[in-house]
Amino acid sequence: MLETIEIKSSKRIEFIDITDKINSIIAASKIKEGICFLNVPHTTAGITINENADSSVVYDILTKTNQLIPENNNYTHFEGNSDSHIKSSLFGQSLSIIIENNRALLGTWQGVFFCEFDGPRNRKVYIKIL
Amino acid sequence: MLETIEIKSSKRIEFIDITDKINSIIAASKIKEGICFLNVPHTTAGITINENADSSVVYDILTKTNQLIPENNNYTHFEGNSDSHIKSSLFGQSLSIIIENNRALLGTWQGVFFCEFDGPRNRKVYIKIL
Amino acid sequence: MLETIEIKSSKRIEFIDITDKINSIIAASKIKEGICFLNVPHTTAGITINENADSSVVYDILTKTNQLIPENNNYTHFEGNSDSHIKSSLFGQSLSIIIENNRALLGTWQGVFFCEFDGPRNRKVYIKIL
Repeated sequence: MLETIEIKSSKRIEFIDITDKINSIIAASKIKEGICFLNVPHTTAGITINENADSSVVYDILTKTNQLIPENNNYTHFEGNSDSHIKSSLFGQSLSIIIENNRALLGTWQGVFFCEFDGPRNRKVYIKIL
Repeated sequence: MLETIEIKSSKRIEFIDITDKINSIIAASKIKEGICFLNVPHTTAGITINENADSSVVYDILTKTNQLIPENNNYTHFEGNSDSHIKSSLFGQSLSIIIENNRALLGTWQGVFFCEFDGPRNRKVYIKIL
Repeated sequence: MLETIEIKSSKRIEFIDITDKINSIIAASKIKEGICFLNVPHTTAGITINENADSSVVYDILTKTNQLIPENNNYTHFEGNSDSHIKSSLFGQSLSIIIENNRALLGTWQGVFFCEFDGPRNRKVYIKIL
C-alpha cells in the first residue's frame, strides 16, 4: 500500500511535523506490527526524527545547520540552492520506522519532521507499510 | 518480533559498539535471510556504522563532530543540549541492515555503534527482524 | 534475493551514479511493488540520494563537505583517512527505497549515488529486494 503525504511549506527553511499524518495512515492500514517506510522524492528536502515538544530545539538545529552550510558560499550550481542540496543529503531522504500496536514506535519526545530546505513549495512524502 | 537492546552510557558523548548484541538477537531469531531494522527512541542519541577495529577512528569522529557542533554555541533551548539534538539528526536514528547466513551483512571493518550525545544515561535500541 | 553492485572509483572523493544499476536489478527481479534495501559494506564510503541532472550539484556537495571535514585536521588515526570515516557516517551507509511499477520510486531529479570518500578503490553495494 503506497500513500502520499502532501505538504505545503511556507518558508525557505523549516521543519514540519508530520507525525500525526503518519500515524493516521498507519491507523487506517489496520497493520498492528510491521515497518513504515518514508521516502522524500525531492533533492532539496529531507526527513528526520527529533524533539517535537519544545520548538527551540528545531530552531537551534536550523540555525546551526545554516551556520555550517550557509545559503551563499561561492557555490557553482546556477540555481543558487546548493546549500539545500547539501542539507538534503546530510539529513537524509529515507526513514524506516517500526510499527507496534498500530502506531509508529517513537520515543516520548520524538516526532517525525519533513525538512524543507528550499521552500516555500508544495512537497510530498511517500509512505509504504509492510 | 520486536526486541530491545539496553545500553548504559558512561560519558556525555561516546560511541558504544552493539554489533555483537545485534548478531545475538539475529542468531536467536533463526532467520537466515532478511532485514534487521534498528530504531533509536531518543532525540539526543543516534546510530551509525563505522570502523570498530581501531578505536582512534571513533575518537576522530567524535572530536571533529564536537568541533563542528560544539556543546556551547549560543543555543536557545533551555536544557543546554542542543548540540546533542543536532548530532542526533545528522548521524540518524534508523538503520536497516541486510541479514545473510543468519548474521548482519557487514563489511570486514564495520561495526554498528549506538551514538550517545547527551549521556551518561540508560538508553535503548529497538530491533525488529523481517 | 541478494545482489551485489560492483563499483570502481577513480578519485579519492567522488559520487558515482548507480541509479541505472539499481533499476536493472529491480527490473530483473520482476517485483512490481516492494522495498529495495541498499547497504554499503565499507567504512570510508557512503550512499545518498541527490540531483543527477546538473553535475555542479555534486561538485558543490563535495567541495563544501571537504571544507567542513578537511583531509588533514590533526586526526589521530594512523591511516590518514579519518575524514573519510567521518563523511561515511554523516552521509550514511544504508538506504531503503520504495519500489513501484517495477522501478525505484524516485523524484524527477533524484539519482542514487555511491559516495567514494577514500578512493580510488574497488567497492560494492549490497542490494536486497523484498
